[in-house]
Amino acid sequence: MNKSVIRFLMGKVLKTEAVLMLLPCLVALIYRETEGFYYLFTLALCWLLGFLLCLKRPKSSVFYLKEGCITTALSWIFLSLFGALPFFLSREIPSYLDALFETVSGFTTTGASILTDVESLSRCSLFWRSFTHWIGGMGVLVFIMAIIPLSGGSSINLMKAESPGPSVGKFAPKLKSTARILYGIYFALTVLQIILLLIGNMPVFDSVCTAFGTAGTGGFGIKNSSIAGYSPYLQWVITIFMILFGVNFNAYYLIVYRKFRKAFAMEEVRWYFIIIISSIGIIFLNILGTYAHIADALRDSAFQVASIITTTGFSTVDFNLWNSTAKTVLVLLMFIGACAGSTGGGIKVARFVVVIKTIKRELNSYIHPNSVKKIQVEGKAVDRETIKAINVYFITFIVLFTLSVFLVSFEGKDLTTNFTAVAATINNIGPGLELAGPASNFSLFSPLSKIVFIIDMLAGRLELFPLLILFHPANIKEFFTRRR
Amino acid sequence: MNKSVIRFLMGKVLKTEAVLMLLPCLVALIYRETEGFYYLFTLALCWLLGFLLCLKRPKSSVFYLKEGCITTALSWIFLSLFGALPFFLSREIPSYLDALFETVSGFTTTGASILTDVESLSRCSLFWRSFTHWIGGMGVLVFIMAIIPLSGGSSINLMKAESPGPSVGKFAPKLKSTARILYGIYFALTVLQIILLLIGNMPVFDSVCTAFGTAGTGGFGIKNSSIAGYSPYLQWVITIFMILFGVNFNAYYLIVYRKFRKAFAMEEVRWYFIIIISSIGIIFLNILGTYAHIADALRDSAFQVASIITTTGFSTVDFNLWNSTAKTVLVLLMFIGACAGSTGGGIKVARFVVVIKTIKRELNSYIHPNSVKKIQVEGKAVDRETIKAINVYFITFIVLFTLSVFLVSFEGKDLTTNFTAVAATINNIGPGLELAGPASNFSLFSPLSKIVFIIDMLAGRLELFPLLILFHPANIKEFFTRRR
Repeated sequence: MNKSVIRFLMGKVLKTEAVLMLLPCLVALIYRETEGFYYLFTLALCWLLGFLLCLKRPKSSVFYLKEGCITTALSWIFLSLFGALPFFLSREIPSYLDALFETVSGFTTTGASILTDVESLSRCSLFWRSFTHWIGGMGVLVFIMAIIPLSGGSSINLMKAESPGPSVGKFAPKLKSTARILYGIYFALTVLQIILLLIGNMPVFDSVCTAFGTAGTGGFGIKNSSIAGYSPYLQWVITIFMILFGVNFNAYYLIVYRKFRKAFAMEEVRWYFIIIISSIGIIFLNILGTYAHIADALRDSAFQVASIITTTGFSTVDFNLWNSTAKTVLVLLMFIGACAGSTGGGIKVARFVVVIKTIKRELNSYIHPNSVKKIQVEGKAVDRETIKAINVYFITFIVLFTLSVFLVSFEGKDLTTNFTAVAATINNIGPGLELAGPASNFSLFSPLSKIVFIIDMLAGRLELFPLLILFHPANIKEFFTRRR
Repeated sequence: MNKSVIRFLMGKVLKTEAVLMLLPCLVALIYRETEGFYYLFTLALCWLLGFLLCLKRPKSSVFYLKEGCITTALSWIFLSLFGALPFFLSREIPSYLDALFETVSGFTTTGASILTDVESLSRCSLFWRSFTHWIGGMGVLVFIMAIIPLSGGSSINLMKAESPGPSVGKFAPKLKSTARILYGIYFALTVLQIILLLIGNMPVFDSVCTAFGTAGTGGFGIKNSSIAGYSPYLQWVITIFMILFGVNFNAYYLIVYRKFRKAFAMEEVRWYFIIIISSIGIIFLNILGTYAHIADALRDSAFQVASIITTTGFSTVDFNLWNSTAKTVLVLLMFIGACAGSTGGGIKVARFVVVIKTIKRELNSYIHPNSVKKIQVEGKAVDRETIKAINVYFITFIVLFTLSVFLVSFEGKDLTTNFTAVAATINNIGPGLELAGPASNFSLFSPLSKIVFIIDMLAGRLELFPLLILFHPANIKEFFTRRR
């Protein structure tokens, strides 16, 4: 194991966090909030630690997928541990476990909260909370890669470990340029949303925070009523941007380079829109009876579908009160999730596309035993390794999911709460149903359950393997033994 | 497609059903019940149809896995369609759909019932209901194979399609002998249970029916209170036999041939017992507080765990009233199911053993990228095809499960009811939770949901593929076109 490069990158991560914390400090300065000092203190701490870790340059910057996974998992844990400090130090969240829950929920773009009164938070903390979504959405390591150089070939192992979805497309010949293009699109879309929200008379602070929450498909609201208090125009803007941030970013890349035909031929994206439209249709028909105006029913259906499938988790209505068909559709969407290569969570549409094709092929092989057909997505054959990885992903997902539900069940809450709370955290959504529903929050759970949820959120965001590899006994052992 | 052999075998199946219906006729004769005439009528009908279908011998008795699947799926459907007739004709179950539900539930050894008052049924119908479990437990085609000859090599395709679990071990050089040995063990264990129940002063009729329900891991009770009304001794006997019928029958085969060491080295069986013992332990601790006597708590935990993991579905207590940890354990057991090669349903312990090993291997491949390790069960490498089949099975299971929950949700019942009702039928268990719990029954569901459950029960018993292949558009088309 190349421990020195892991250490070095961890230093870079902490330094990056220090730089990022300048922004909440700035916010505190603008609104003259004393809580800003805790951010300044954490900033200094991160910078100092980062500086110490980076003192010695690594002998070799080459590393493999294993190191990629460990670095990714460790850096997300470090970011969260330090990111939680200001909440805790300022006593805005008195328990460190709760502060950690909130921060992990932020970075993993989950948006599940333990706060009962969001509006009592200081502006700088509200900003930091939403900003973690924006950082987590695209990934911290991708961000670092966009800035610092890594010896060729090694970066892909970092990107593979951090990016959501089954495969990372290489657009540009150099990965560094790819990362920059991705961040460019991400940044541009966020700015566009802020402008559109400002046009709808949303205050500047609200616009920035809401856009961060949308871009990262996070879901932390800065109001107790989430998005319900905003005007229909603003709700529609947010709905559209949630859906846009759930699209595979490759599509935008292709559009930027004027390859329109290729962009619109993307199978995953087409399925993503088909699922969204049909879900909105089903839910709309199911809730219509309880609404006075059709427009309201349509807006609420569209908003909630967009929020859940992209795993954002904003809400404009307590969907826990909907009928069970509508709720079942939402629970299914929780698992489907957004497109691969987007900022969204969940299992991802691409995986389902491959999985359905695998089943079809298997059935065909019973009927025509001698035909050997490869699974194709967008006309290209999917290689055996990818299919195997997807199968293993699914099964690991089920095992982790089951184990989590089991551990959470010790609390004695009802089964729907336990099931959907795990679904909402492992898929990085935010709200579940019943006691974990949009009108409730996660402060009701025991410390054990909160720890389970924290692990689920991280495992979900990093797509299971990096975290499992970090905690693999063989690696823990290797990490704590000196090199011979 | 070799249609003539499918037709011929279908005739054999109907003739077999006619022969099997002699028994309820006999019961009606003993208890002088007029309902017996409906059984006699159905018997005659089956025999006549069977006779007509068998008139022309097939030109070739060779057939492949596709024909095996189609024959299996069709014969289970035929058996159920005709098996439901007496219930319907005698007006004991006034709706034919309900009668079909009850019969499919019987043959697939599910044990889910639409009857609100079982005890009002005639003796011959109660007998037939329990007898379908016994028939379905080991499989009808295996039974036919034990009697009639099929050209070498073709029989394995039938057995593959009908037997539960990932792979069929060939004990004896000839498949026909294998089938006979299996039936021998099955028969002997059933008789042993009847004797032990009689010793506990259970009436003869009750003993026979209960033993049928246990042997097939079915779960139809002949009392409204299921097994709760019987003495602790009888409950323990049933508990032990449920567990015994959930063991992989290969183990008994090995014991019969005095290969004790090999029998006790079976990895699946060992895990099966570990899961049972730990589940009993967890549930026992969770319900202990509500019991006056430790012995009662232990017996109830053991009975319910045995009943659910073997997918029998008998009950001695309304476990819907237990706390959520205990209920979560039961829901998990619903999916795990019994051993492969037993009469039980569910996903099967063997599949989980392979799946856990697949995950382990995948994680190792991240850590040691160049090591190629094969997955081993009991020291033998599991071949690639089996692993792929298991992965595809899991994923197909999830898709079918999800679709079913979605369709059932149109009723507007609560999520736990929908989820566990589908789990209870697709895994061939019987009772679920809430409105599908042991104190309730399936008569509350709409016709659409009942049809979904019927398909789930059949798909679960036949392990998904035969039914999907039967309904594959390409096959339906081929079936209805004349040979060129």
